[in-house]
Amino acid sequence: MSENPLQLLMNPKSIAVAGANNTPTKMGTIQALSVLKDGYRGKFYPIHPTEKTILGITAYASPQDLPEVPDLALLIVPIKAVVSLLEDFGKIGTKRAIVVTAGFRETGDAGQDMENKLNEVARRYGIRFVGPNCLGVINSQIFLNTTVYPFPQKPGLLGFASQSGTYVTQVLPSLRKKGIRFSKAISLGNEANIDIADALEFLGEDKQTKAIILYIEGIRDGRRFIEIARKVTPHKPVLAQYVGGSVSGARAGMSHTGAMSGPDFLYDGIFKQAGIIRVGSVEELYDHGWTLATQPLPRGRRVGVITNSGGPSSSISYTCDLVGLEVPRFSAGLQKEIRKYLQPHAASANPVDLTFDTGMKKLAITIPEIVIKSGEVDALIMHGIMHSGFLREIYSHVLDFIGGISFEEFLSFTDPVIKEVFELPLKYKIPLLISSFFGQEDSYTKGFQENNIPVFYSPEKAARALGSLYHYKLIKERSLNKKIVLPKVNPQAVSLIQQAQENGQKALDEHAAKILLAAYGVPVTKEALTKTENEALSAASKIGYPVVLKACHWEIMHKSGKGLIALNIEDASKLKTAFQDIQKAAGKTVPVLVQEMLAGNREFLAGMTRFAGFGACVVFGLGGIFTEIYRDTTIRMAPLTAADAQEMFADLRARKLLEEFRGMPPVKIDELAGILQTVGNISLLHPEIAEIDLNPIIISGAKPVVADALIVLEG
Amino acid sequence: MSENPLQLLMNPKSIAVAGANNTPTKMGTIQALSVLKDGYRGKFYPIHPTEKTILGITAYASPQDLPEVPDLALLIVPIKAVVSLLEDFGKIGTKRAIVVTAGFRETGDAGQDMENKLNEVARRYGIRFVGPNCLGVINSQIFLNTTVYPFPQKPGLLGFASQSGTYVTQVLPSLRKKGIRFSKAISLGNEANIDIADALEFLGEDKQTKAIILYIEGIRDGRRFIEIARKVTPHKPVLAQYVGGSVSGARAGMSHTGAMSGPDFLYDGIFKQAGIIRVGSVEELYDHGWTLATQPLPRGRRVGVITNSGGPSSSISYTCDLVGLEVPRFSAGLQKEIRKYLQPHAASANPVDLTFDTGMKKLAITIPEIVIKSGEVDALIMHGIMHSGFLREIYSHVLDFIGGISFEEFLSFTDPVIKEVFELPLKYKIPLLISSFFGQEDSYTKGFQENNIPVFYSPEKAARALGSLYHYKLIKERSLNKKIVLPKVNPQAVSLIQQAQENGQKALDEHAAKILLAAYGVPVTKEALTKTENEALSAASKIGYPVVLKACHWEIMHKSGKGLIALNIEDASKLKTAFQDIQKAAGKTVPVLVQEMLAGNREFLAGMTRFAGFGACVVFGLGGIFTEIYRDTTIRMAPLTAADAQEMFADLRARKLLEEFRGMPPVKIDELAGILQTVGNISLLHPEIAEIDLNPIIISGAKPVVADALIVLEG
Repeated sequence: MSENPLQLLMNPKSIAVAGANNTPTKMGTIQALSVLKDGYRGKFYPIHPTEKTILGITAYASPQDLPEVPDLALLIVPIKAVVSLLEDFGKIGTKRAIVVTAGFRETGDAGQDMENKLNEVARRYGIRFVGPNCLGVINSQIFLNTTVYPFPQKPGLLGFASQSGTYVTQVLPSLRKKGIRFSKAISLGNEANIDIADALEFLGEDKQTKAIILYIEGIRDGRRFIEIARKVTPHKPVLAQYVGGSVSGARAGMSHTGAMSGPDFLYDGIFKQAGIIRVGSVEELYDHGWTLATQPLPRGRRVGVITNSGGPSSSISYTCDLVGLEVPRFSAGLQKEIRKYLQPHAASANPVDLTFDTGMKKLAITIPEIVIKSGEVDALIMHGIMHSGFLREIYSHVLDFIGGISFEEFLSFTDPVIKEVFELPLKYKIPLLISSFFGQEDSYTKGFQENNIPVFYSPEKAARALGSLYHYKLIKERSLNKKIVLPKVNPQAVSLIQQAQENGQKALDEHAAKILLAAYGVPVTKEALTKTENEALSAASKIGYPVVLKACHWEIMHKSGKGLIALNIEDASKLKTAFQDIQKAAGKTVPVLVQEMLAGNREFLAGMTRFAGFGACVVFGLGGIFTEIYRDTTIRMAPLTAADAQEMFADLRARKLLEEFRGMPPVKIDELAGILQTVGNISLLHPEIAEIDLNPIIISGAKPVVADALIVLEG
Repeated sequence: MSENPLQLLMNPKSIAVAGANNTPTKMGTIQALSVLKDGYRGKFYPIHPTEKTILGITAYASPQDLPEVPDLALLIVPIKAVVSLLEDFGKIGTKRAIVVTAGFRETGDAGQDMENKLNEVARRYGIRFVGPNCLGVINSQIFLNTTVYPFPQKPGLLGFASQSGTYVTQVLPSLRKKGIRFSKAISLGNEANIDIADALEFLGEDKQTKAIILYIEGIRDGRRFIEIARKVTPHKPVLAQYVGGSVSGARAGMSHTGAMSGPDFLYDGIFKQAGIIRVGSVEELYDHGWTLATQPLPRGRRVGVITNSGGPSSSISYTCDLVGLEVPRFSAGLQKEIRKYLQPHAASANPVDLTFDTGMKKLAITIPEIVIKSGEVDALIMHGIMHSGFLREIYSHVLDFIGGISFEEFLSFTDPVIKEVFELPLKYKIPLLISSFFGQEDSYTKGFQENNIPVFYSPEKAARALGSLYHYKLIKERSLNKKIVLPKVNPQAVSLIQQAQENGQKALDEHAAKILLAAYGVPVTKEALTKTENEALSAASKIGYPVVLKACHWEIMHKSGKGLIALNIEDASKLKTAFQDIQKAAGKTVPVLVQEMLAGNREFLAGMTRFAGFGACVVFGLGGIFTEIYRDTTIRMAPLTAADAQEMFADLRARKLLEEFRGMPPVKIDELAGILQTVGNISLLHPEIAEIDLNPIIISGAKPVVADALIVLEG
């Protein structure tokens, strides 16, 4: 395996910066100052056409003048200078660059041309670069920060690959208030060269990074992205926000980084397949990411909620239920032990609510330790632990009655902060999440944050973040069934497609589509293609009544509602009428498919669509009349493992239909999974196929049988 | 209309406080200090058995000793003293009280007894009180604060009725950081006397209060609550968080305030009926409430998004789409005008993204005014406006290069804050919501907050809050169809019920149920009750084949899957077999209902259940095989207006089924609405009915017809 291009880019021994000057409020200068001031110990070389020094450091007119070949070039120059400057760096042998300058692909065709030139130069000189149209990178391990905001000089644990620069840098002050620190962060910009898949791979391999977050407006190389994600997620959690899946989200992304987005349901499926947890806001991305980076995984889903007030108790408990956690009622024995420390009106059943009390010992350590040691919970959420924040609030009120002492003196008379609470997660290997209405003005909030225990400023947020932590536990435990061996190309399938192409068809007719499917082992209806009434009669008597008659021609892609189908034909005389009716409805002589009439009240659908970047994706969902009503479908990229198919079944809101239901037997799940896998395989073996639509797949008894099929060809 | 009891309680001219002492960290003392120190100008009388002064103020040994009759008594005394103390206040003529003390209903039977005694005393002396087990009230208009945290001495706009004290008081420091201020806030506790309906009514009438938020663990008098809410919501927005709808949420609420909760879907329906917007967290309650309290309503759903960075642009736009807003592409003319102020790589289509720029004029005022004046948007969300927050960030980096001047001097060299942006909502009557990563350390954040423009510390939150603002516009515009005239009690219905009761039946049989329904005008299947095969044959030939046969006896409440129904019987010979089969399956001679076989692929259900506090509630949903699969149902309290019924249709995820669908005609909506309304009316007219279940209601052609009915009796 070749080294990830970010390995060197994120760990340069020397950096040349072009685009800084001596005006300290210019963006290039601010970025240069971040490199200079945040603790980076490598060499720093300003490039400037005229100035002799930049920010007090000797400047060089061009790369050729540099005393050594820098590992990394940081370009913040006007757009017209970017390509030639990158070439200059290429000539001296610099192999990594960050192109901050904007105005490329995201602006349209001219910009795309310029971006192509940039790529050309990079290819020629073997340069790998981040950007253009980005804000650079942060590597807290070596205190490297090329962005516009200062980074706290303390290494972090959370890795971030972002298609927004703002979310890497302008957010830093607000992250500081939460104690959240990046290990490494990469603003990817237009991804002309290094892309989000590279970044994910890099962060996956990075030891400092304990969890990875992704901000995504669109993924260009979806196949590679998923392949890498499936390697990373079994050992390191990955969370993503995706905002390209709506009309205006897609428009925003396009003008931002020229991102190629896809529909929401595609990304939903892709993330599930990759083991990536999707969140709904950038705040959740940081908060949940930090929780996953810092807290041990829970053994199970049982949460102990310990608070000093009822509102947060109830809100946390309710939200735990919503996100798939459980707040179990404590055993009588445990409650009895807890009650020793409670006032009579306090609650002990879980949530434990001590009610308002300014003494913290019971809340912060006594009861949590009892609860942990009981073995009745797998994680803890606590609310209400406070000290200086609260005392500061009441200080002005009590001042007259405490002899006018200073706030610090006042503090010194109160119970000291109980440091043992900060050690709980490590000591007991149990996740601890804190809810508090106080920020860092409170010494407990500060203490928790310094000990990498996440603090949430709203109770429900703690429950939601714990939901993600538990979700990751499930992802880590899931089976991946990695090996997929594609079947051999079936010659009958090849000839059916060739023949259709030669005929100038845009699709196979239903019967041909089913022969193709059957050639790969997909169960289809018994049927025969007939040209005359007599052929139809003889086919029907072979198949057995009742039968279905359908007009069968590749041009008739959608038959329903047009008089081209007759269902449930019970005898020969009805068949004759139906045959004639279909000919009339078609308006010309048309072959008729005589098909067994399947009895079955459960209908599903499967299909295949190709999405840019991802290629063939397999859809599964509820079929029949409710298809359009509930849009209960799910999607995965082909090929599918058997485990992928099983996860698709689990995605279905109507999954109960797959079980024993209203006297119907459980569906033969493995056969249904086989159909989904085969649809994916066929799509990969036959790139000439644009689209597959199997709807309905009728469950006949327990067995799934494809009752209608459409195969559309490329072109 | 009698005066709301909170009118006097919230505006007392004098307050007596029992339970404070001279220890400044005791809860009672802290609360007394809030009354003393937060600006309240009325009289303040401490009650204390032994101390001569409390907090420097003359104390009285008992209410009898007071120099005047206080308007309000605030009781924070130990539980055993509460009842007699309230009685003492009753004796002197005090009519309002706040009982902070906990340990009543929420602790079980003994506590419930104590609470009953409290109620008894209150009734005897005509006292109305808040609590017990609460933290008191805030009235920012008269600077009255009886809670444990100081309240900023600036009147607010947001009214709050809360079943959690913490959410009224411990949250105050965090609300301060957001510039959110209560007009009035009431911690309701156990609601032994004054309840959430009283509080809602009071806040609805309160001029200072511009929007109302409710934190709810359970509503006791649901009927009154809805009645009041329907009066308030057309002129003042109401938002609610409800946390009692899950297993552990309900348990938490029970031990917190003894709350009687109900299932989530009940509260969902009730809130919709009442015009209350439901939110998912207490943070949203405050944030969205503040938005609704401060911002003008948008004319429509078109949002202009103006930012200086692409990530927030995309996140805001995507989230707007999610919550039912629209981020329209700007016209070419408008874009041309905007582009004059943009760099070439910036985006103008909406979102407008200026990209990173430290000059604020274009972002804060120039472009917003152009966008507003274009008339192409109904609301604005802006991100990235910043000043001192950002400059503080880079100050330490640039210090060496600006001659070591102080931060204040550094600030003075930068562009001043553009105050015009704070005037936009008032000047143009357009809602403005701000997203920023800076808190009050930034002068713009501070300025926005001082001008009551909400600032959100995460971009998606602004979009979500705007979604609630738009949602309220729709609520304000909705038709309520207020007048409901119940029909007269039908004598046939009365006698059917009486007869069943006399027979000792727990339910009506299907046929009787349908006669009852038909008596009130509900369309039911043509059918006849038969005892013999011959009767059945003659009934079938009158009704016309195909028919359905069903065993008909009140004990057979659920027939399917037991051989007690035969569908689609096409002729006499099949009828005979079916008749015999049913007798066999029943195991005894049973009457048989001969029923028309309705053709129709669309099935719905309607029903009635009685919920504690709410009484009869009407359910509507998808019927047939998918009932249990999608649980696509909605609920309203009876009686229903026609508008209520229409809103129930709109709730249905499968609402498309009501329209023209797959060649089927649009459902006769008014007839379906009539069925729902009649179910509600029947429930109110006949309290002997415990439960009604009409499933399925088959859409025959366009017409809804009840094909099966169950009426269960109280017992």
